[in-house]
Amino acid sequence: MKRVMLRVAYDGTEYCGWQRQPNGITVEGILNSRLSALLGEDIEVIGASRTDAGVHARGNVCVFDTKSRIPGEKLAHALNPSLPEDITVQESCEVAADFHPRHCDCNKTYEYQIYNATFPDPLLRRYSHFLYRPLDVSAMQQAAKYLVGEHDFKSFCSVNTQVNETVRRVNYLEVLEGGIRPYGFGATGETSDGIMPRLITIRINGNGFLYNMVRIIAGTLIEVGYHKRTPKSLAESLAACDRKAAGATAPACGLTLLEIQYGKTSMFQ
Amino acid sequence: MKRVMLRVAYDGTEYCGWQRQPNGITVEGILNSRLSALLGEDIEVIGASRTDAGVHARGNVCVFDTKSRIPGEKLAHALNPSLPEDITVQESCEVAADFHPRHCDCNKTYEYQIYNATFPDPLLRRYSHFLYRPLDVSAMQQAAKYLVGEHDFKSFCSVNTQVNETVRRVNYLEVLEGGIRPYGFGATGETSDGIMPRLITIRINGNGFLYNMVRIIAGTLIEVGYHKRTPKSLAESLAACDRKAAGATAPACGLTLLEIQYGKTSMFQ
Repeated sequence: MKRVMLRVAYDGTEYCGWQRQPNGITVEGILNSRLSALLGEDIEVIGASRTDAGVHARGNVCVFDTKSRIPGEKLAHALNPSLPEDITVQESCEVAADFHPRHCDCNKTYEYQIYNATFPDPLLRRYSHFLYRPLDVSAMQQAAKYLVGEHDFKSFCSVNTQVNETVRRVNYLEVLEGGIRPYGFGATGETSDGIMPRLITIRINGNGFLYNMVRIIAGTLIEVGYHKRTPKSLAESLAACDRKAAGATAPACGLTLLEIQYGKTSMFQ
Repeated sequence: MKRVMLRVAYDGTEYCGWQRQPNGITVEGILNSRLSALLGEDIEVIGASRTDAGVHARGNVCVFDTKSRIPGEKLAHALNPSLPEDITVQESCEVAADFHPRHCDCNKTYEYQIYNATFPDPLLRRYSHFLYRPLDVSAMQQAAKYLVGEHDFKSFCSVNTQVNETVRRVNYLEVLEGGIRPYGFGATGETSDGIMPRLITIRINGNGFLYNMVRIIAGTLIEVGYHKRTPKSLAESLAACDRKAAGATAPACGLTLLEIQYGKTSMFQ
């Protein structure tokens, strides 16, 4: 018996999230059925992050136990041909038998993408949230600073969950503005509205995230970008420890789980 | 009566290409039916570039004539709500009544994207061609130089077409290598195979392209990247004026029509 870890990437558009459920196709459900068929055992993976319906991942992590003689690092090659094209295993390796992807210290990185332009871009629509009114990115950057560090993020946690401990550490929270190469009729690339299309990326890294936390942070920063809140007000939002003190939950399609980093010793000891 | 020009972006994945056809949904067909319904007239657009099934666009161009009193630059706003989410009009404006998007001097820019990594990436799969064996990008860059300039591109034209004039001018042809941020288990970001995932972009600009020309150029450069051809052999491929002297036609999903540039005088005179 050995424990194998998978790094899984998926386009979440067509899935009811990670976690297996009676009605609806989930990433976990697909992995369990395809691994069980491949290995001839009843496989149940343990996932690191139970991403919501519509959320994407480049590097979610899960583990499972198997009697298979396929070497851990070859399992990705063996499994990928049987997976649908919107899920792929990017890497696999053997880990310590007691390694649990949720009960170990780790840092996670998420990215929330906003496409801010006059009209939606069909090539970006699946992986970004479209907003047509221009956002004040500088205000969003100022606001982001208030959330960095160790705080009680209860205000930034969906009320549809029960956790006792709502203190988390945000290691960094960046709001980046990327130009989209302009293809407009005008020489400057501006559209007829005079607005330059751009992709705004909120990148956050922390030691754990509450239910919907990144999407609520994104939604609150968007309200700052629209001057419905001041950057400084985020200190009060945190202090209130009340979901109503933060902004709306931004849509799932903009969110991608990029990476989960474990200490090497926790994985292989 | 006025002539209106649209800049159209689309995700070509679900379409049988641009050009209307009896069986199959096309971008042109959708535009005709939605414009006709919106304006209460029989609208038939004239497209600049008849992209193939599965090819994407950020800036294809078409024109149509209408009696509508909606100002040209407002038509994008009026039309977009009735379009499916994989087609959007990015801009609209009124042009000269005799402006024809195919019978005017213009320069077009296309991009062909290759995702070169051990495993496909679900988030890139719709807009790039996946290849797992490492490509020699430097050889591809050397080969690209032979195609720049005015040449007879008959070897790089599908035999399923009849055109008399096969001389075209390629203004530039770049092969760019972009890093994908690594999310691997290893500290260097390398996967267990030791290969860094990367996105290779072939960007080409010219005064006109023959049927399948960009995809055949991409396919030929891929063969150079795999050392099946030398960079220098592209001079011979050109000189042969024979489709068999060039490489395979690369898949449609990697191709995006970025932009069509007309001289301002040709559009508005």
